[in-house]
Amino acid sequence: MTDLRLTPLAASLPSTVPFVGPEAQERARQATFDARLGANESVFGPSPRVAEAMARSSIWKYGDPENHDLRHALAAHHDIDAAHIMVGEGIDGLLGYLVRLFVGPGDHVVTSLGAYPTFNYHVAGYGGTVHTVPYADDHEDPETLFARAAETNAKLVYLANPDNPMGTWHDGSALTQALRTLPSGSVLVLDEAYIDCAPAGTAPALDPHDPRVIRMRTFSKAYGLAGARVGYAIGHPALIDAFNKVRNHFGMNRAAQAGALAALQDQDHLAHVLAQIDDARARITRIAADNGLTAIPSATNFVAIDCGRDGAFAKSVLDGLIARGIFVRMPFAAPQNRCIRISCGTPRNLDALARALPRALKAARGG
Amino acid sequence: MTDLRLTPLAASLPSTVPFVGPEAQERARQATFDARLGANESVFGPSPRVAEAMARSSIWKYGDPENHDLRHALAAHHDIDAAHIMVGEGIDGLLGYLVRLFVGPGDHVVTSLGAYPTFNYHVAGYGGTVHTVPYADDHEDPETLFARAAETNAKLVYLANPDNPMGTWHDGSALTQALRTLPSGSVLVLDEAYIDCAPAGTAPALDPHDPRVIRMRTFSKAYGLAGARVGYAIGHPALIDAFNKVRNHFGMNRAAQAGALAALQDQDHLAHVLAQIDDARARITRIAADNGLTAIPSATNFVAIDCGRDGAFAKSVLDGLIARGIFVRMPFAAPQNRCIRISCGTPRNLDALARALPRALKAARGG
Repeated sequence: MTDLRLTPLAASLPSTVPFVGPEAQERARQATFDARLGANESVFGPSPRVAEAMARSSIWKYGDPENHDLRHALAAHHDIDAAHIMVGEGIDGLLGYLVRLFVGPGDHVVTSLGAYPTFNYHVAGYGGTVHTVPYADDHEDPETLFARAAETNAKLVYLANPDNPMGTWHDGSALTQALRTLPSGSVLVLDEAYIDCAPAGTAPALDPHDPRVIRMRTFSKAYGLAGARVGYAIGHPALIDAFNKVRNHFGMNRAAQAGALAALQDQDHLAHVLAQIDDARARITRIAADNGLTAIPSATNFVAIDCGRDGAFAKSVLDGLIARGIFVRMPFAAPQNRCIRISCGTPRNLDALARALPRALKAARGG
Repeated sequence: MTDLRLTPLAASLPSTVPFVGPEAQERARQATFDARLGANESVFGPSPRVAEAMARSSIWKYGDPENHDLRHALAAHHDIDAAHIMVGEGIDGLLGYLVRLFVGPGDHVVTSLGAYPTFNYHVAGYGGTVHTVPYADDHEDPETLFARAAETNAKLVYLANPDNPMGTWHDGSALTQALRTLPSGSVLVLDEAYIDCAPAGTAPALDPHDPRVIRMRTFSKAYGLAGARVGYAIGHPALIDAFNKVRNHFGMNRAAQAGALAALQDQDHLAHVLAQIDDARARITRIAADNGLTAIPSATNFVAIDCGRDGAFAKSVLDGLIARGIFVRMPFAAPQNRCIRISCGTPRNLDALARALPRALKAARGG
């Protein structure tokens, strides 16, 4: 050892993790977090029906590889045919399959500088080249992304609406308008992980037969099932069927299939959660203001707070919060890394944030 | 549409599924199966502690991407360091990652003709070439597999011990002996999915620092957690760490992590299940004999029954069982496809098998 006969591509890849998990941070600090506000999970939890459905799911059986029941329920929910829907192991898993289908060495993709790193991880993992476009006024910039796609002959363009990590969004009609400039041959990967938290009209009214767009949705955010790993893609049937070439057909957890179905069927719970998210966003905005900081308006289950200086200062504030038991994260790229990103929490979580933030700020300011 | 700009490799792949699931078969026949004896699941179910652990797992949180607690519990269980262990989304998921790390166009692997098709699916999916070696007297044939690996400069050699679909096995000492002929540069993928069901001494006593072997284990079989998707690999730390280059770091279901840990910690339940598996194997063997057929001795949670004629006849018997509400499967390749494969069931499941088999045989023989 250790002359592993890896493929040249695999040999060239680092053994990275896109994000260090909060549990690893807890082990390092030898204390649990008081408030888990860093991963945009839903502290409000899933519908109570989810636990019942998961418990009844007969975990000794493999899950249905066709995800039939969930796929058909989603089809009814969206009023489209089930042939437009692929269920997978979270959006992360679906992004991995999609990149594998389209991207190899010599292929190009476009994304925003500082957008979701797991997409970039997959592209690098299959040997593709990532081109980035800066945010415009803390918003992803569809026209510039699509122009860059034309320049680079990009196969995929990644755009999250609403955006992570900034929480900003575009109206669906603006996206529909911008789509006219998407170059022929580029597929828009429209990550709508946070769409349930966004104002009506944020999701563009797309024809599911439109071959230029694949939408990604998830049960990890507003539905409160991050740990279940259930996402789905909506797109043209030929594109959806292509997932069957490469996916792990028996990869879905059976309890997760049942839990996601139960979550979908409890829209009252979803509405209740969305009201709590609304309250939490307002509270985080007030906490920021109480500390002389500006919260960026958000259509997600988190709020980016502009700490008013550079990335090093925001990192110092973030470290101060983590040291005080508040797990949060921050954007990776300048100038968005002047912010810290706070997931919506319970009133008690946000009380803890309100106590810790002034101290973290004081420490970051040297004093 | 539909000029998808897939990679040339992806474009060349069929949209296949390695196995059609029983749910799809139930939908097609518009009736549920009376006995689910086709997927080598454990009808005896997991430890009762599993359900409690899963319910307590806070599914709204993402799972720990390091699988720390489960990995360390497994390390203690096997008396090795956690650096030798990678946890993944079932052996299927881990095989996919392993093949991705090693195999691209122009690379070769060796397996037995008719062995686990999901390994072949992954190899084809990454553009590699599969070379096969026939079974020898219904056993996988390590020496011949390794000789073929030498001829083909194979990067990976797949060997299941005990074997699926035949249920046969080699003593660990015989494998250790055979390993001397594994060519330099080939890694043995030793699939031990069924090892818990096998006689003592079936698992070879390997040095976990041996870079030539990676072992695969699972919670899907004797531990009764097929639907949870939890497998693990044991190997050299450099090989284990290579998974971090490509795996879906947040791909593990959090309830599954907790459930697998609880299952591991209830070895009494495992022993109880193994006794039930023993009884079921004996009962299936008797049912075969009662019908003038021969059961092949098994070290797994299933039994292959030799139907005494060719593959077409066995398929006819299998179809007859399915038509009578008994879900079973059969080997793919001749001459093993003279058999049908029956998973261990409850006494009630096997009563149903005992009733259906004579009728299925009679129908297959032309009435």
